[in-house]
Amino acid sequence: MPTCIPSPIAWTPSNGVRILDQTLLPAEESYRDLETVDSVAEAIRVLRVRGAPLIGIAAAMGVVQALGKRGKLAPSAARGGEAGKNEIEAVQQACKVLGATRPTAVNLRWALERMRRRAELAAERGEALGPALIAEANAIWEEDRAMCRRIGELGATLIPTGATVCTMCNAGALATGGIGTALAPVYTLHESGRSPHVVVPETRPLLQGSRLTAWELTQAGVDCTLIGDGMIASRLRLGDIACVIVGADRIAANGDVANKIGTYGLALAARAHGIPFYVAAPSSTLDPATADGSRIPIEQRDASEVASWQGTRTAPAGVKVWNPAFDVTPAELITAIITDKGIFPPAEVSRLPLTAHR
Amino acid sequence: MPTCIPSPIAWTPSNGVRILDQTLLPAEESYRDLETVDSVAEAIRVLRVRGAPLIGIAAAMGVVQALGKRGKLAPSAARGGEAGKNEIEAVQQACKVLGATRPTAVNLRWALERMRRRAELAAERGEALGPALIAEANAIWEEDRAMCRRIGELGATLIPTGATVCTMCNAGALATGGIGTALAPVYTLHESGRSPHVVVPETRPLLQGSRLTAWELTQAGVDCTLIGDGMIASRLRLGDIACVIVGADRIAANGDVANKIGTYGLALAARAHGIPFYVAAPSSTLDPATADGSRIPIEQRDASEVASWQGTRTAPAGVKVWNPAFDVTPAELITAIITDKGIFPPAEVSRLPLTAHR
Repeated sequence: MPTCIPSPIAWTPSNGVRILDQTLLPAEESYRDLETVDSVAEAIRVLRVRGAPLIGIAAAMGVVQALGKRGKLAPSAARGGEAGKNEIEAVQQACKVLGATRPTAVNLRWALERMRRRAELAAERGEALGPALIAEANAIWEEDRAMCRRIGELGATLIPTGATVCTMCNAGALATGGIGTALAPVYTLHESGRSPHVVVPETRPLLQGSRLTAWELTQAGVDCTLIGDGMIASRLRLGDIACVIVGADRIAANGDVANKIGTYGLALAARAHGIPFYVAAPSSTLDPATADGSRIPIEQRDASEVASWQGTRTAPAGVKVWNPAFDVTPAELITAIITDKGIFPPAEVSRLPLTAHR
Repeated sequence: MPTCIPSPIAWTPSNGVRILDQTLLPAEESYRDLETVDSVAEAIRVLRVRGAPLIGIAAAMGVVQALGKRGKLAPSAARGGEAGKNEIEAVQQACKVLGATRPTAVNLRWALERMRRRAELAAERGEALGPALIAEANAIWEEDRAMCRRIGELGATLIPTGATVCTMCNAGALATGGIGTALAPVYTLHESGRSPHVVVPETRPLLQGSRLTAWELTQAGVDCTLIGDGMIASRLRLGDIACVIVGADRIAANGDVANKIGTYGLALAARAHGIPFYVAAPSSTLDPATADGSRIPIEQRDASEVASWQGTRTAPAGVKVWNPAFDVTPAELITAIITDKGIFPPAEVSRLPLTAHR
């Protein structure tokens, strides 16, 4: 079965960052070329680029922009020289700016940490900084692509042929450098002609379900049905959903999972109806330094996301709003965590072999 | 504490139906005068008037419009005459048109049945039809207003002073002929200076929470916080919510409750966190002819409500949508049902003394 899975990120010819502007989907498939650290930071902050793995990749590519037009293309001034020191400082400053864009995703932190270390190593070794950082960003991207593929292969074994599955938000191709995390098993099955039907909650306030997941599944030719977030429990009650698969923004050492707001309610509904609840995420999403979900910082976003729509108020002026971007699903509601390193019961996720870059 | 609780319905000087057009809230507080059965039916169908009790009142007032300009104001031609027969047929036809607007709310059915019977009785007795039907519609309205008041008094006993409560959709003044059902205890407490804080889920797809409940609570000076529907479970988990109070569109004989889509998921989240879950509804919402929730017809609404926003598509063209307007919360998830006739455990709701008009 032919698939056309969209790709949300690329290099420009000048080693800038080309992104699919996800805030304009599904109306417009529009790409932006970002040539500065600040423009990449802005893109991450306002969700032009989103999804924990993709944020890590975009931030890594964003660090490269700190080198400026010449530094990105030409070998840098080498060991000990003034230029080298300036460049390292520029990279460190870029990591700070990019690291401050979103607080919850752990991928952002480690991708930036990895870029910073690579820059320091290059300085020590007297290597050219541009090629070294570009290669490191590419390695982060390529590893993510391979992780998605592996998650797809492992996860596909859990889904019966032609089953209906339910997801949340967008943990698909648009959230990663590959075929997604939660949607990777869906695409893997689709490619082998055993395509599932996907139930997609719209995922308010920013509608990543309707704008992104429904869009990329439709592009790829995967059958899907859109529902409102309040319809989740009733849809699960119909009895035909084989399993739930969601992504993760951070996995704590005890198996608690931070993911898009709404995931916890979906997990409660899955438990009430005896439906397996899977989390699919690259092993880099595990944060062994976070003991449990209560320690995961949850980003609070602007009231206007809930109280207005494209500039039109949908709630009375001045109403208070509570708008956390993520919630925490406790390990006991999770059937298994599907990673590139294997499928784990959540309580055993801390045994996950750590990836080389941690 | 001064309150200014909005009123969504009134008679015009010509005995037409004046409605607050709820589709335009919160941006615009706009009233429409409806002088024909079809315009009342349209207003109910497209939710200019909504909320199970208010639909019943509006439909009863709509039946009066079948009598035409002269019939509404002057005594009708009497017993056995051609005009009388034509008028009865017009009333029956109006009941058919109005009854076909929304399938789930039981109030609509009984209000129309009551108007039809009153018309037939008037014909038998040779009474003037206009005054008889206007009086009957007023009786339905006044009974509802009194029921709201009584629900408020009873429900207020269940809520601690200054507590935080969570509701769903709009079962407030805008849904009834009085101070609401689910919000009646809130207003009763507010009037006595013991105002609760109300957590209001936005209630997609039509945003009755943000557009209507947040609006009327703000008008009345009641403190409230708006959240997305996907945030409900996380908000309940914070541990400060004393109880959930929702309305009902129909209560089956076994205590199962049909209410706005999202209520079932809210009930599951309340159960998971040990939070009491109350349904507040006039006794007329009980449908003893419906054995349990599985027999309640659930209205499926248009895909565009979920897939687009004020004419702008939010999902890719052609995507499938599942858009039920209501869900059913099973009796075992309900702590108690608060009615104008008392507070009942759901399993005992069928013992509810039936109102005279049933």
